[in-house]
Amino acid sequence: MKNTFGTSVNLTVFGESHGPAVGAILDGVAPGIAVDECFIAEQLSKRRPAGAISTARVEEDDFEILSGVFNGYTTGTPITIVIPNKNVKSADYSEMSRLARPGHADYTARLKYHGFEDFRGGGHFSGRVTAAIVAAGAIALSALKGRGIKLGTHIKECAGISDRDFSDIESDIDVLNALSFAVLDNKISDAMVEAVLAAAADGDSVGGILETAVYNFPAGVGEPMFDTVEGVLAHALFGIPAIKGVQFGSGFELAGMRGSEANDPFDISGGRIVTSTNHSGGINGGITNGMPIVFSCAVKPTPSIFKSQQTVDFVNCETAELSLKGRHDPAIIHRARVVIDSVAAIVLCDLLAQRGGTDSLMPE
Amino acid sequence: MKNTFGTSVNLTVFGESHGPAVGAILDGVAPGIAVDECFIAEQLSKRRPAGAISTARVEEDDFEILSGVFNGYTTGTPITIVIPNKNVKSADYSEMSRLARPGHADYTARLKYHGFEDFRGGGHFSGRVTAAIVAAGAIALSALKGRGIKLGTHIKECAGISDRDFSDIESDIDVLNALSFAVLDNKISDAMVEAVLAAAADGDSVGGILETAVYNFPAGVGEPMFDTVEGVLAHALFGIPAIKGVQFGSGFELAGMRGSEANDPFDISGGRIVTSTNHSGGINGGITNGMPIVFSCAVKPTPSIFKSQQTVDFVNCETAELSLKGRHDPAIIHRARVVIDSVAAIVLCDLLAQRGGTDSLMPE
Amino acid sequence: MKNTFGTSVNLTVFGESHGPAVGAILDGVAPGIAVDECFIAEQLSKRRPAGAISTARVEEDDFEILSGVFNGYTTGTPITIVIPNKNVKSADYSEMSRLARPGHADYTARLKYHGFEDFRGGGHFSGRVTAAIVAAGAIALSALKGRGIKLGTHIKECAGISDRDFSDIESDIDVLNALSFAVLDNKISDAMVEAVLAAAADGDSVGGILETAVYNFPAGVGEPMFDTVEGVLAHALFGIPAIKGVQFGSGFELAGMRGSEANDPFDISGGRIVTSTNHSGGINGGITNGMPIVFSCAVKPTPSIFKSQQTVDFVNCETAELSLKGRHDPAIIHRARVVIDSVAAIVLCDLLAQRGGTDSLMPE
Amino acid sequence: MKNTFGTSVNLTVFGESHGPAVGAILDGVAPGIAVDECFIAEQLSKRRPAGAISTARVEEDDFEILSGVFNGYTTGTPITIVIPNKNVKSADYSEMSRLARPGHADYTARLKYHGFEDFRGGGHFSGRVTAAIVAAGAIALSALKGRGIKLGTHIKECAGISDRDFSDIESDIDVLNALSFAVLDNKISDAMVEAVLAAAADGDSVGGILETAVYNFPAGVGEPMFDTVEGVLAHALFGIPAIKGVQFGSGFELAGMRGSEANDPFDISGGRIVTSTNHSGGINGGITNGMPIVFSCAVKPTPSIFKSQQTVDFVNCETAELSLKGRHDPAIIHRARVVIDSVAAIVLCDLLAQRGGTDSLMPE
Repeated sequence: MKNTFGTSVNLTVFGESHGPAVGAILDGVAPGIAVDECFIAEQLSKRRPAGAISTARVEEDDFEILSGVFNGYTTGTPITIVIPNKNVKSADYSEMSRLARPGHADYTARLKYHGFEDFRGGGHFSGRVTAAIVAAGAIALSALKGRGIKLGTHIKECAGISDRDFSDIESDIDVLNALSFAVLDNKISDAMVEAVLAAAADGDSVGGILETAVYNFPAGVGEPMFDTVEGVLAHALFGIPAIKGVQFGSGFELAGMRGSEANDPFDISGGRIVTSTNHSGGINGGITNGMPIVFSCAVKPTPSIFKSQQTVDFVNCETAELSLKGRHDPAIIHRARVVIDSVAAIVLCDLLAQRGGTDSLMPE
Repeated sequence: MKNTFGTSVNLTVFGESHGPAVGAILDGVAPGIAVDECFIAEQLSKRRPAGAISTARVEEDDFEILSGVFNGYTTGTPITIVIPNKNVKSADYSEMSRLARPGHADYTARLKYHGFEDFRGGGHFSGRVTAAIVAAGAIALSALKGRGIKLGTHIKECAGISDRDFSDIESDIDVLNALSFAVLDNKISDAMVEAVLAAAADGDSVGGILETAVYNFPAGVGEPMFDTVEGVLAHALFGIPAIKGVQFGSGFELAGMRGSEANDPFDISGGRIVTSTNHSGGINGGITNGMPIVFSCAVKPTPSIFKSQQTVDFVNCETAELSLKGRHDPAIIHRARVVIDSVAAIVLCDLLAQRGGTDSLMPE
Repeated sequence: MKNTFGTSVNLTVFGESHGPAVGAILDGVAPGIAVDECFIAEQLSKRRPAGAISTARVEEDDFEILSGVFNGYTTGTPITIVIPNKNVKSADYSEMSRLARPGHADYTARLKYHGFEDFRGGGHFSGRVTAAIVAAGAIALSALKGRGIKLGTHIKECAGISDRDFSDIESDIDVLNALSFAVLDNKISDAMVEAVLAAAADGDSVGGILETAVYNFPAGVGEPMFDTVEGVLAHALFGIPAIKGVQFGSGFELAGMRGSEANDPFDISGGRIVTSTNHSGGINGGITNGMPIVFSCAVKPTPSIFKSQQTVDFVNCETAELSLKGRHDPAIIHRARVVIDSVAAIVLCDLLAQRGGTDSLMPE
Repeated sequence: MKNTFGTSVNLTVFGESHGPAVGAILDGVAPGIAVDECFIAEQLSKRRPAGAISTARVEEDDFEILSGVFNGYTTGTPITIVIPNKNVKSADYSEMSRLARPGHADYTARLKYHGFEDFRGGGHFSGRVTAAIVAAGAIALSALKGRGIKLGTHIKECAGISDRDFSDIESDIDVLNALSFAVLDNKISDAMVEAVLAAAADGDSVGGILETAVYNFPAGVGEPMFDTVEGVLAHALFGIPAIKGVQFGSGFELAGMRGSEANDPFDISGGRIVTSTNHSGGINGGITNGMPIVFSCAVKPTPSIFKSQQTVDFVNCETAELSLKGRHDPAIIHRARVVIDSVAAIVLCDLLAQRGGTDSLMPE
């Protein structure tokens, strides 16, 4: 099930960077969810490179829905979305058939696919494939919205500069979803862009941390022992190129706390059971507790840099010097956030459906 | 597939803390792997509480293999291991049917299981269930050993104190696997124990970070887009109670690096392709590159503390004060490391088998 | 997922005929289903050999529930049932380590497990394993009953003798479930027993056809394209030893009909949409239509016969003569019917849960 | 996993009869398999209606490979094939939004998809979707061929007329794969076509039985208890519209045999272990024994007939008279055989890969 993820709601992705198209199939979605093509386009535009800090390859992302939607609503059968690859310059990548770009999958792809891999532009390992995930994710986000659930991600850290924390989660999410560079504090946003440009000027790149919050997700969802909310989200999130760490709530900071600090005290507020802190990120024992779900992802610096790098020619098994040409992003973190939103939305739909399934068997 | 994990090799776990037994089924393992019951017992002893820094509940962990082993070797059919629960004092936990222990799953279990959950001692959410995983993991570790692969974990950080980094990975793994408190530097080990005792004296608990290395794992293994080595390992690791973050290689530190630092340059050493640094933790594009696989897990402080805590009575929906009695660990990090080794070993067997399956279809 | 079956509700089986125990885990069942140990025992007694037409090996089938049940109700966590093997005479089977019994899996097990298989009494391929399925199935049947659904199987054909067809399905099911030799017409029942005894007198065995009906199962359940009601049921049913054919409704007889005969005309009866015939077995397009689900299974004759048979010694690769000793059934069809009921009940719970999950995502 | 099937090698299908396209994704296939577009086209032509006994809707089946193939070989990543729907006349089907065609899924689709289903031409339930399976299956057949395995299907029975049995399986397969109407005996072929035309003249339709043989498939393949060769094949085969029964070897005829007849005696021939009969269809205990795999499928008569039929208007819940117009096949059995070949080839690749995976974990 290499390129398919999920149990009740599942996502299948396909495509190579320089092949005819990338695409995704979203299956198991309930019938009757309104499909807003403008919203899909808007989500795709958040992932599309733009401005000085992005690659010069501009993809139009004209998507086509091939199945599963009828008269503007999901039918309940597989939804297939295809995004043709148009602005492809394969000549730039010919060296990849033998030179391993550091931080990329050229060499490991060679090992796994024995030389039959489509090496152009990273092939199936290209971030290009995530465009299809974003299109599919837009439908999952609509499904969640239909049940009153909102989701948003900010750049918590980039090039060593940190955004402010989430405060009022619902309104913060609304603010973020209207931004193309998703930082809560405007001044910090400007500083981050400058830092990215400084790296770009050095022929280098930067990484960062993306933090996501989910508002109004029902309590009692998650399928331990193994299909915990944390486990299933992390599994899918690590499929996104460049993600090298995933943590929930206070995550790695919990390692330095004592139990009396880390335990979120339960309380009652407005007649509902809440916790007065949220170090657990809204999840206890792998199951949601009704507080906002909060998680963050480590995004490594874009591996494609213009600085000269040492590497190997894996066909001739000899060392080599690599100087990349072509079109590359000095940062992808601002583009990755909508991919994270999309993956998270699909996983959360799946977990909701599984909870609904179990409950539907309870005695009448 | 809530309590079953894996594709070609899979693990199913069952049991409640105060029920008759916990257990595990390991299916899909090749026939012909020698099953060493002494090694299973030794692994269980690493998880068993011992000494001043552990709970006074001492479990004997007499395991019984009910199926899948014949004349000392795996048969290829499901291997079932059952560990009876003996030293059970359920009276201590009666409050849990209504008081939510902060940091525990009592409240979320109630939401999910609608009051039918076995609340005694955390029920199915108890760390007790991990004993069965350790027994199953011992067989997976034997399978890996039969192919020359070694795996070990150290306490990288505990109570704010850090161990030295891995240096010679193979010999470090050997050293760690002979220790009950797995710290590479002896003096740091003593300091950590003192810090745990200090927390215990305060009626409090500590957490930490566990770092794992895998030596000699083949290159070219992993099933992207979704069944990346990172994704599958993280999915299973988050099933272990108390894990709130998982990162690979330099993980969250990568967020602050530039591409020129973070990219591991390829090189040739002893006729083999290697990388001169290992920020990626031995994984590019979700596929192993032949370098040691390195990952670390954030372990939150044990939520059971003796300090009085604010909470709610979720049956009557009113606030309450909670003072835990019973037997609790001020730290579980030293016991959790063998659980992580076990989970990782099972997942790595699964990924190896999947690679073997794909390759077996190549034209002759 | 070799020994695990199902998506939302799943069954894992383990054990060998002459190992310590057989058992099953049923996961994904809703919490709050009453577990009636007497009913489990009663179902096991239907599978247990009895009387002149069965093997002299009488198994007591003392089962133990190790997890997932608390205070008499399912908790929602994995339900583990273990049945120890007591009356084991392994000496009778020593030849199986080298002589392939015709119609058995000795030779194919050798090919697959490379000589590490537990060959005693058929090992994991023994019908003994189905006892655990029956115990788990009893809980699934209780879950269905809690939603008003009934299920029963009759011996439609045995040794060339046919039972009458189902007429009033609900009352026929009630009648069958009270019988140990499940034939609707008493006289035919007697004739079948005589035919089995005649075969036994010849040192031979017989097979037959089991037909199952499900009453009051909701319409609209099934997950095409691949998880059709037919496909999922057949998949699981073929896991039962001796099943070599599965058909729905009129099945293979449809091959000889014209469309105008085979198409079940829709009609309205009592305000509900029904079909006036049920050649489709209650399933159109893989989805239930509200009519009784009807399917039948071909049960091959028990392969263990006392007549001398030609075979091979697969260790020495030479022909051999085989004369079985030990305890063998001249027919297992009367015992197999409760296994079919059990497998069907588990699969139907799974399909119900999946439908519930999808519907739970529809907009509010 | 409704529209995805398989474990190591898996197939996902999508599309509606009157939507933009149908398609399939085949994932998990090894890299390095030559993709012959002419062979794909040839296979599609076998499924395409032709001549007097087929619908007048002629589909061109121009397929496009969107991913997973590079320089003429599979890459090891998901292979996506899309077949646009061109010759669509939706107006013919407008009644289906309310009138349930007997034998079709219109009513059950309504129940499951709550009115959001694409009802035109059967939507996702249309046999049209099987075109995509045939295209994907052509690649699986090539993979099998690369390992010396052949597969073919004949019309064993149609309109009450029976073909001769398989004799020399390898050459029979070769003969069948060159025919568009796959009957081994020419005269019988003519008689069948006449019988189909006779039914067509009556405004009626016929069904039949398709029997498939697989030559040179390795022994020792299959994943019991649940992923038996029988179970997995049947599961997938029942996904094909119109299949209502699946049997292996002598199947339902075994029900009337005695053990001494049904048991296939083992023998040695040419130094290999064989069976002198093949009632088991090459499978013992769910595992292949090295003899040809033989199975057959009951194909119900095409439900679309021109005769007037009684039905209901399920929107208004009232009875109605239905007279179909449009383009319909009096028989689809001759077109279905290549669908069965395709599904079987994909499933057999999956089972081969799983066996390879398990074996790859054996100690070195």
